[in-house]
Parts: sequence; structure tokens; C-alpha cells
Amino acid sequence: MGNVLPLPEWLKTYQRDFIAGDLTAGLIVTVMLIPQSLAYAMLAGLPPEVGLYASLLPMVAYAFFGSSMTLAVGPVAVSSLMTASALMPLAMPGTSDYISLSILLALLSGLMLLAAGFLRLGFLAWFLSHPVISGFISGSAILIAIGQIKYLLGIQFSSSGVLSTLKHLALHLHETNSATAVVGLSAVAVLLFARKYLGSLLKLNGLSEKTSDLITKLAPMVVVILTSLLVSHYGLNHQAHVAIVGDVPSGLPALELPALQWEQVTTLLLPALLISLVGFVESVSVGQSLALKRGQRIDPNRELVGMGAANVASAISGGFPVTGGFARSVVNFSAGAHTPASGIVSAVLMAIVIAGFTHWFYYLPQAVLSATIIVAVLGLIDTHTLKEAWLYDKADAVALLLTFAGVIIFGVEEGIVIGVAMSLAVLVWRSSHPHMALVGRVPETEHYRNIERHQVEVFPGLIALRIDESIYFANSQLIAEKIESLLAKQPATNCVLLILSAVNQLDTTALGMLTELEKTLRARNITLEFAEIKGPVQDRLQQTELGKRMEDKIFLSTHQAFLDYQRKYPATEIKLSTMR
Amino acid sequence: MGNVLPLPEWLKTYQRDFIAGDLTAGLIVTVMLIPQSLAYAMLAGLPPEVGLYASLLPMVAYAFFGSSMTLAVGPVAVSSLMTASALMPLAMPGTSDYISLSILLALLSGLMLLAAGFLRLGFLAWFLSHPVISGFISGSAILIAIGQIKYLLGIQFSSSGVLSTLKHLALHLHETNSATAVVGLSAVAVLLFARKYLGSLLKLNGLSEKTSDLITKLAPMVVVILTSLLVSHYGLNHQAHVAIVGDVPSGLPALELPALQWEQVTTLLLPALLISLVGFVESVSVGQSLALKRGQRIDPNRELVGMGAANVASAISGGFPVTGGFARSVVNFSAGAHTPASGIVSAVLMAIVIAGFTHWFYYLPQAVLSATIIVAVLGLIDTHTLKEAWLYDKADAVALLLTFAGVIIFGVEEGIVIGVAMSLAVLVWRSSHPHMALVGRVPETEHYRNIERHQVEVFPGLIALRIDESIYFANSQLIAEKIESLLAKQPATNCVLLILSAVNQLDTTALGMLTELEKTLRARNITLEFAEIKGPVQDRLQQTELGKRMEDKIFLSTHQAFLDYQRKYPATEIKLSTMR
Repeated sequence: MGNVLPLPEWLKTYQRDFIAGDLTAGLIVTVMLIPQSLAYAMLAGLPPEVGLYASLLPMVAYAFFGSSMTLAVGPVAVSSLMTASALMPLAMPGTSDYISLSILLALLSGLMLLAAGFLRLGFLAWFLSHPVISGFISGSAILIAIGQIKYLLGIQFSSSGVLSTLKHLALHLHETNSATAVVGLSAVAVLLFARKYLGSLLKLNGLSEKTSDLITKLAPMVVVILTSLLVSHYGLNHQAHVAIVGDVPSGLPALELPALQWEQVTTLLLPALLISLVGFVESVSVGQSLALKRGQRIDPNRELVGMGAANVASAISGGFPVTGGFARSVVNFSAGAHTPASGIVSAVLMAIVIAGFTHWFYYLPQAVLSATIIVAVLGLIDTHTLKEAWLYDKADAVALLLTFAGVIIFGVEEGIVIGVAMSLAVLVWRSSHPHMALVGRVPETEHYRNIERHQVEVFPGLIALRIDESIYFANSQLIAEKIESLLAKQPATNCVLLILSAVNQLDTTALGMLTELEKTLRARNITLEFAEIKGPVQDRLQQTELGKRMEDKIFLSTHQAFLDYQRKYPATEIKLSTMR
Repeated sequence: MGNVLPLPEWLKTYQRDFIAGDLTAGLIVTVMLIPQSLAYAMLAGLPPEVGLYASLLPMVAYAFFGSSMTLAVGPVAVSSLMTASALMPLAMPGTSDYISLSILLALLSGLMLLAAGFLRLGFLAWFLSHPVISGFISGSAILIAIGQIKYLLGIQFSSSGVLSTLKHLALHLHETNSATAVVGLSAVAVLLFARKYLGSLLKLNGLSEKTSDLITKLAPMVVVILTSLLVSHYGLNHQAHVAIVGDVPSGLPALELPALQWEQVTTLLLPALLISLVGFVESVSVGQSLALKRGQRIDPNRELVGMGAANVASAISGGFPVTGGFARSVVNFSAGAHTPASGIVSAVLMAIVIAGFTHWFYYLPQAVLSATIIVAVLGLIDTHTLKEAWLYDKADAVALLLTFAGVIIFGVEEGIVIGVAMSLAVLVWRSSHPHMALVGRVPETEHYRNIERHQVEVFPGLIALRIDESIYFANSQLIAEKIESLLAKQPATNCVLLILSAVNQLDTTALGMLTELEKTLRARNITLEFAEIKGPVQDRLQQTELGKRMEDKIFLSTHQAFLDYQRKYPATEIKLSTMR
């Protein structure tokens, strides 16, 4: 087997003293994972056992193919929401059609990730800018939280979209099931308390920071056990109509795929792509930040293969789209996981639970799962990036807000498409309006700076213009106009020097513009010169008509161009610029 | 009236010695315009009189609002093709519904151009790169020429798309009407001969270049007159079933607009946008190149207003979308037009023709109009740009070919959308894979160059990396990885100097990456420094946490950073780089 499936590096170099950490971490992650996997299956519109299935093989597959040592792979909130959003229009939640579609979605997503990994397309993920991701995650969190309120209160209605959900909530509020609401809201309160204060409280009582943190992470499991016992003991499911999880089939999932229908495949391509993209970006950024803490690195293309294998594994074991979760990965890391062996430990424990203990979840109230989801996603809402972007770059802040609003108003897929389109539009808009600066010599140096920012020496007959952007189709005309308007202001000009230190590309349109410019300037007895042209740009320019005509008018540095000008026009006057 | 509609500049400063040139040019353009306006109306699927109407008021409106002195505005081939392509799916060509839609299209296009002019959105036109326009025009020309062959041969069938048209041509070739084919093909031969050889022939016989050129331009009118006389004299329309123009209603158009339907407006928005965009780009580039020959300039935003006014004028006088035509503008220029008065002369002459002489076109064979169209569009096919782009920049050549193929295979609107999408994708792809260079000092200078291109001095403990692209979401991760991989190769590094001379933007994602980089480097006792940061970038950086932390690590020049490094590590060794 070694030849067919090479052993992962971490397994070959496994050290005995990793065992304790990996075992502890695997156990703690499992305790977190059980309520979360049930909850996220519910969020995705799937029966609870599907959540358990998705928490089994994907971790093993990732352990063999991924590159992060500590990423905890499994069902996560945002992917579950995206799954629901993709499948709701196609089938009734909970039906076997719906389950087949969710398996297909995981399979498509897995195959796309694998293909992207083999084609080394990891860089595509970077097209989601940080503000867009932040807006997307915050918007999704709010969408999820609002969607869970009805379960928390035991109200029943069906709705789609935030506005409609809020309206129905208001209309049906009087139908609140008091027992459910008490259980649900108490669970939210306890979980919030555990997250915000329990750690500090335990530390004040003398426990170590690590122990306090870990106990805090067990709170959801404690809430699950206590509320299940409560419901069971008082028969609240019958007496007070508290909705419970009910029968969860036991036994390991069969390894098989449902029959594929081509029409379904084409419908699910875009959702699968977006789920892959978002899931990949999230898990790489979590994986990367954890790896850096230990001086390790992760390889984006191997991550793609790891996440792809995990999703294919999820599909063949009856699960749904999985990815690297933020909270569980952090817990895994701080509980001492050294290698993906901790994931295999979790998988084995989950297998035991699935094989024999699913009846333990019978009395678990759905409201408690909703409470788990709500508290988990509230932690995802990110106002820090918005503040930072607002102060630093308004356009990024607008992209964030538009993505956020897009998710809430139109839905998750639309939101992310709006965000990406907006980022690209900003990119193009900016490069189409380049910054340009007239420069002069910083006296007694070889440095040349913006005449409006520094007091520098200039020659009245020389226009020395630094163009702070690649010249290409969207800005070449603007640049030509700028030069013409400078010439109109300084009619005595006999030389135009373009400083190309910031020009990284010259496309065909730009080449055409410069060729035309050189021609018209020559007709007016004005010399066109270039300075500080970059190697790759120069290489391509050399072969062209313009390059040949300008051969002796290209200077390595602005300084050499200025010296050359002084040699040609020794009588020229030197003026000092007046700063703005 | 002076207050309401200010007189245009050219009229206020009109000189008596412009009169002769403007009169001659106006007359010659009219002679060209008559067959072209009839032909382009036919190409657009409209009755011939609509072509005449579109050649009347638009020129007057442009004379008052446009900024080019010599642009000849009216029906042109590409806009006519785009009109047909937009309207064919909506109504039967030639019906009154079809005419109403074409008026609406001109109105929408005019209003969009006016709005863009007032909002100063002229720069949007530059998003059509030169190769994309070239591919679009060449593709449209071939589409038009192939579509005209059936009229040339007197065959009747209806088809859409190039392949279907070619197939039908092959199937129906035996139905060719011999008389029509003789007239049509002779017309093509004569027009091609006139364009290619007549000028040189006349010059050889002692005529001046200008006179020869102008006589050449009259060839279409001569062909029109001769073939009309031929058909009329031999009764070819009855005897040999040669299709003729037939009755063209005389009398000036009524100034009115058809009733607008909201549904039609929304359907026509995209076609109107594309027609406006293409028409504007074409007319600005013609106008600009003619203006530069006389040392004049045109103002893109005033051009928008001019073209917008022309299209609104076309709409209210029963015309269809118009723009600045290449061939007629060149003729107008070389025939001596000094001001848009030549356009007013043409308009007056056209008005006289429409008012009283439309019966002259009765016997004009449709095949001759097709011959006029084919010869005109063959001149638009541009292989020069393809060759140039292929040699200079393969990506631009591919964009050109994709646009060309898109127009021919999918149609004009699809083609241009494909072209723009492709240009933007190339732009983003390139900037997401930035060129980066390790630099060192050119010995005994203050210049720093790529260590692989120049033999330069480097310090073994200093990584001096020049990043040749703005840092933003799509490339910041790649840059971070590059730095990490350099550090892995040079583990003794104690300082990373980023040279930002080519960095024109740092977005929020880049800021986050650099903040994180500074933090992780600091933890490893490596200093992060910046040099040659640009003013606008520095301004924004200053307010951030990173900017504050790096205050004393930002150097005006790479040289200063190197000197500082030598001061801090006086024992450092200086090595010479080995060039690639």
C-alpha cells in the first residue's frame, strides 16, 4: 500500500511524546464536535445522523492529504448555511432527495478542490479579499442566527429571506412554546456566560489558563447532557411539546454514492464552487495562522487536495460539505494536538458514538442545538475588520458592507458574487485613474521626488513625469491627455521624460499610445525619453518599432536623464519647485 | 436664444476663408453619404428613407455640441449591424414596430451618452482595449460582408448566424439571379478597383494627390447613377427581376417620438449601452487622430454630449443610432473641412434630396447597395493590430482573436462582452502574479538593480526585495509566500527590506498581510523595513498600527536603507551577485 498511498510525512516522523497531546486534543474536539455536528446538520436542513457521518471519514482523509498539523475538519456553520441555501430551492429538507443532493454537493465540491489542487490553482482563493470575506462571514452569521430564533422559541413557520423571517417571527411570537423558550434561552445564556466569563472565573479560582479554557469548551456538552436529562425526566417532549432530536439511526454509514443526474450536477456547479472557495479560504487562513504560531507552514495546493479528499470522503460516507472549522481548530491546537493523529482519534471516537450511542441524543431538545449554533455564529461577527478598513481604505469598507448587505438581502451566493465583483471594480477603477507626479532633483543628491511634496530642482524645458501605475488600455488615454495638458501649460518644453519605475506592464494599447505620442512629439520637435524602465518591460519594448526608435533615449536612472538634458542644453536654467 | 443655447466656439470665431473648404467638404461628404445612408439603413433592416433621415439632424446637433471640427456623424456600418442584431429578435424588419424600436434604441443610446457626458464618464470608453476593438470591428466586418452576399446574388432566404448563412448560401447558390449577380459583382469590382488603383492611376496622369483622392471617393455615387440608369433603361427590375430600392417616400421627417413601452426600454438597455460604447470609442478615436493632425484636441466628455445630442436628434426625426464614421470623416478632413459647418452644409443638401429627389433612387439596385457595404467593411478588417499584438503581447492577441471569434460565432453583443471580460481577466491575472526582484547596489553608485540582471553588491544578511506591482488582495498571499521562501533559503537573514517604488496601492488585505509579516518577523528577530514608499501610499500607511510601528524603518531611498544596514552591522561582508 505504501506505493499506492504514500504515508504522510507526519506519520513517518511521528514521535512518541506527541501521543499524549494528540489523544487529549482528539478527545476534547470530539466532545465539542458531537453537539456541533448535530446542530450544523439541522442548519443544513439534514437529519442529525448526516452531521455525525460528516465528522468521521473527512478527518481521516484530511490527515492523509492535508498539510496543516492542527486543522479540525468537519461540518461548519457557514458551509452548512450555504448547503441549505443551495438545496432548499431544489428539494424538501430532510427528504431522501435532499440528502442525495447534499451528498452530490459534497462530491462536486471535493472534486473541484482536488482538481484545483492538481492544477495548482490555490492562488484563486486570494481573489476573495479580506474585507469581502469578513463581510460575507458576518452577514452569514446574522442570517444563521435569525433563522434559528424560531427553533429557540418553539415556533413553526416556513419563510425565506431575513425580512420575511423577521415578519413571521413577529406574527407568530404569541405562539411561543414557553417550555422550549425557557430551555433554549437558558442554554443561550449559559453558553454565552461560559464563553465570556467562565474562563476568567476559573482562573481567579486558581486553575491554569489552559485548563480553564478547556473546561469552557466543554460547556456545550454539559448543556446538552443536562437539558437532555431534564426533558427525559419530566417528559417535556410529551407534556410541553418541546421539540427533540428523536431517533437517530445508529450504525456506521454505508460507503456508496447515490445515482448522479446530469441536470442536478449542472444546477449544483455554482453552489459547489462557492462552497469550495469559501471553505478553502477559511480553512487556509485558520491553518496558516495556527501553523505560524509554531513556525510551521502550510502549502495551499496541498490544502486543496486535503480539503478535496475530505469532501469526497464525506460524500461517499453519506455526509455533506465539510471544511476546516475555526473554533474547533483553535481548541485542537491549544489542547496540545501536534499532528493530524488527533483528528484520527476524534474520528475513532465519533465512530464509536455512531455505532452504538446515538440513542443518547433522543431527548436532546432542538432548541439547545439552535442555542449552540447561535452562540457559535455570534462569535463570527467581525466588526474589527470593518473599523480597520473604514479608517484605512473606504473602498474596502464599502466592499465589506456591500457583501454583508448582499448576503442578508439577497442570500449567500449573491452576496459573495457582489463582493468579488465590487473588489474587481475597485481594482480596475483605481488603476484606470493613476497617480502621476512631476518630479525634480532633491538638491545635491541623485534622488528625484514629487515637486509638490519636496522642494526640488527642475528645468523649465523638461517635463519629468513619474507614472505610478502600469500603463494599459484603461488608463493609457488618460495618461496621454495628462501629458498633452502639461504641454499646453508649459509650451516651451523641449523634452518629455517619463519615469517608469512603477510601470510593471505596458500592454498593446499602451504601446500604441506611446508610439503615437512619440510621433506627435517628434513632429513638434519635442524629445520623448524614458527612465527607470523595468527589466521585463524593457525586454518586450526592445523588439518593437517604438523600442528601436527610442534606443538612445532610455536611461537607467532619472539622474542620468537629467544629466543628459543638462549636457544637451547647457544654458538651461535650474529652478526650485514651490511645494504645495 | 444666445442664453439658452450658447453658440459653439467655432461659430463665434468663424473665419471667412473657411467657407470654401467647408462648402466643398460638405458637398463631397453628401455625395458619399447618399448611397451609404441607403445601404446602412438596409443593413439595419430599415426602409431606405430612415437612412436619409438619420443623415440630417444628427449632423446639425453634433455641430452645436461636439468638439471635433471634422467628424462626419451619421449612419455607419458597425452601428447598423448592432441595431439589426438588437432588433431582429424583437420585430420583423421593415415593419412599423421595428422602426419604432430602432427610434427607441437611438433615443436610449442618446440619453445614455448625454448622461455619461454630464457625469464625465468618458473614461469608461477606455475599458475597450485597442485589441478588443480591433477584433470586434474585424469580426463585425466579416459578419456584415457575409450577410450581404445574398443580396449581391439576388438569392432569397432568411438565416441567422454565420454558419447558417453560409450553409443557406451553398444550398441556394443555384437560384442566383444572373442579372443581379452581374450588376452586383461588377459594382464590387469597380468599387474595389476605384479604392485600390484609381487614385494612383489618376496621379500618374498628372492630377494632384488631393484631387485624385476625392475623385476616388465619388466612385460609389457614379456606380449608383450608372446602375440605376441601366436598370431603368432596360427595365431590368421587370425583365430580369433585379431587386431595386423602389419607392422612397419624399418629404422631411416629422419631429415626434413613438409611444414608449417600459418593457421595450428594459430589453433595449444593454444593446443601447453597447452601441453607445462602441460608437463613442470609434468616433473619439477617429476624431482624435484627425484633430492631432492639425494640432487641435477633442474633449471626450464634450464628445459624449455631442454624440448624445446627435442620437437624440436622430430619434426625434425618425432615424436610428448614428455615430462618427471613419471613412466619411477622413474625406471631410481631406476635402478641406475646417469646422462643423461642413456638416451643416451636408445636412442642408440631404434635406433638399429628401424633400424632392427621393424618386431618383427608385431604380437603384439593392445589389449595388450591398456592393457599397461590402467594399466599405472590407476596409475595416484590421490584421495589422493582430500582428503587432501577437509579436508584442500574446495575451492581447488572444483577447483580439477571442473577441473576433465571439462576434462571428455568438454575435456582436456577446463578442464585445467576451472581449471586455477577457481583458479584465488578463489584467487581474497579471497583477496577481507580480514580478519581484532581489536587488543589490550597482558598485560605486546609489543605484540598486535586479541581482539576476546586473552584477551588484549584496549583504548576505539582508533580503532587499523589490515588488513590481501594487500589493492587494489577489497577490498579497503570494508575496508573503515569496518572502517566507526567501527566508527559508537564507536562514541567516536579519533584515527584510521591501522596496516599494512600484507599489501604487496597498489595500486592507495587503495591510493585514504586512502587519502580520512584521509581527512574525519581529518574533524571529528579523527587522522589516520599507524603502521608496510613494507619497499617497505613505499618507495612508501613517495612520495605521503598522505605520506607527515602522516609523523609523521607512527609508526615502534604497541607498539610505543599505547605508543604515551597514551602520548597524559594520562587520557585514559585501558580496558580488552572480548574474543569471
